[in-house]
Amino acid sequence: MSHESRRRGRPAANAVDGRERIVAAARNQFAAKGFRATTLRSIASEAGVDVALIAHHFGSKLGLFAASLQLPEKAHTLLLSSLAGPPRTQGKRLTAAYLSLWEDPQTGPQIQAITRAAVADPEASSALQSTLSGLVAQADVHQLLEGRRTGFFLAMSHLLGIAIMRYVVQLPDIAGADLDELAARIAPAVQRHLDASDKQTSAS
Amino acid sequence: MSHESRRRGRPAANAVDGRERIVAAARNQFAAKGFRATTLRSIASEAGVDVALIAHHFGSKLGLFAASLQLPEKAHTLLLSSLAGPPRTQGKRLTAAYLSLWEDPQTGPQIQAITRAAVADPEASSALQSTLSGLVAQADVHQLLEGRRTGFFLAMSHLLGIAIMRYVVQLPDIAGADLDELAARIAPAVQRHLDASDKQTSAS
Repeated sequence: MSHESRRRGRPAANAVDGRERIVAAARNQFAAKGFRATTLRSIASEAGVDVALIAHHFGSKLGLFAASLQLPEKAHTLLLSSLAGPPRTQGKRLTAAYLSLWEDPQTGPQIQAITRAAVADPEASSALQSTLSGLVAQADVHQLLEGRRTGFFLAMSHLLGIAIMRYVVQLPDIAGADLDELAARIAPAVQRHLDASDKQTSAS
Repeated sequence: MSHESRRRGRPAANAVDGRERIVAAARNQFAAKGFRATTLRSIASEAGVDVALIAHHFGSKLGLFAASLQLPEKAHTLLLSSLAGPPRTQGKRLTAAYLSLWEDPQTGPQIQAITRAAVADPEASSALQSTLSGLVAQADVHQLLEGRRTGFFLAMSHLLGIAIMRYVVQLPDIAGADLDELAARIAPAVQRHLDASDKQTSAS
């Protein structure tokens, strides 16, 4: 299969296509088999490209996993714009935006699969760590969170825990809850975390 | 190896021992290889017992995984006693008790390994789901949570998310935080969830 695909079309025209096909195949396979059991060879085969092309674009399996962690542009924009706007209601908007990514039939399965893989394998966990750290290092995100990095990550931790209970573990009490009601119960806690400045010492 | 172990000692005296060795080996292997790649045969081999003994005690791989999810008696008692006492400070006590399980050199690696395996594999996730549902069905826990099941699971979701970010993903902002300060920032959110009655409709 890889030989055929190398033969067809002009390489230049296929470069972007190939990259996207590789990432899509990687998401599929990391989701189905986990990080460790997935091989570059099997991803190359599904994407219809040569293994060398993966090495060229992503360097290594870990590099490819990191690329597969990137949210689609649409999702990234959604999260970012939820942080923009009145600070008092940031928690409500971030909660709604985050949960909508998990509910979405396109981004939901992807974010779930990648979360499963990232939590399961220590090497994959460290790729998620870099991705999250990189996210708040971006100028636009950094500016929106002005001195509230820890609070942002506490808020994201809360949302991650809810998503795991609702979509991964599917605990009836959380999975069966009405989405709006669930969001309304979580948003104040998320808001509280977002309100706290990094320099603020703990208060009970 | 399994043949030797079947020969030595009196079967009756070894029954409890054998069960414990099986669960210990199961925790090791689910942790190291994940749920799917672990076989009853390899667990039997590590525990020095016959595969039939695992079937006898646990029925199946899923049954054995469920058994390996059970916290040691000590840990269970710790969580339970954190819920007893003044309701106003339940959140603070539950947060401290839960984080101490992850910090503990004995229970920490175990709870981490099992969390990784349970999140990674859908079948293992459903075992975790049953275990958590079973936990609040116990008479003593049920009584302590009187009509606040959803709030308890929202609180546990928050704590789970924090634990994943701190101990599994090891995000510097959360992993590097002082434990007491971290607990003090989370406890009010946990308390708020525990305070909300199941019948309470959402309030923002």
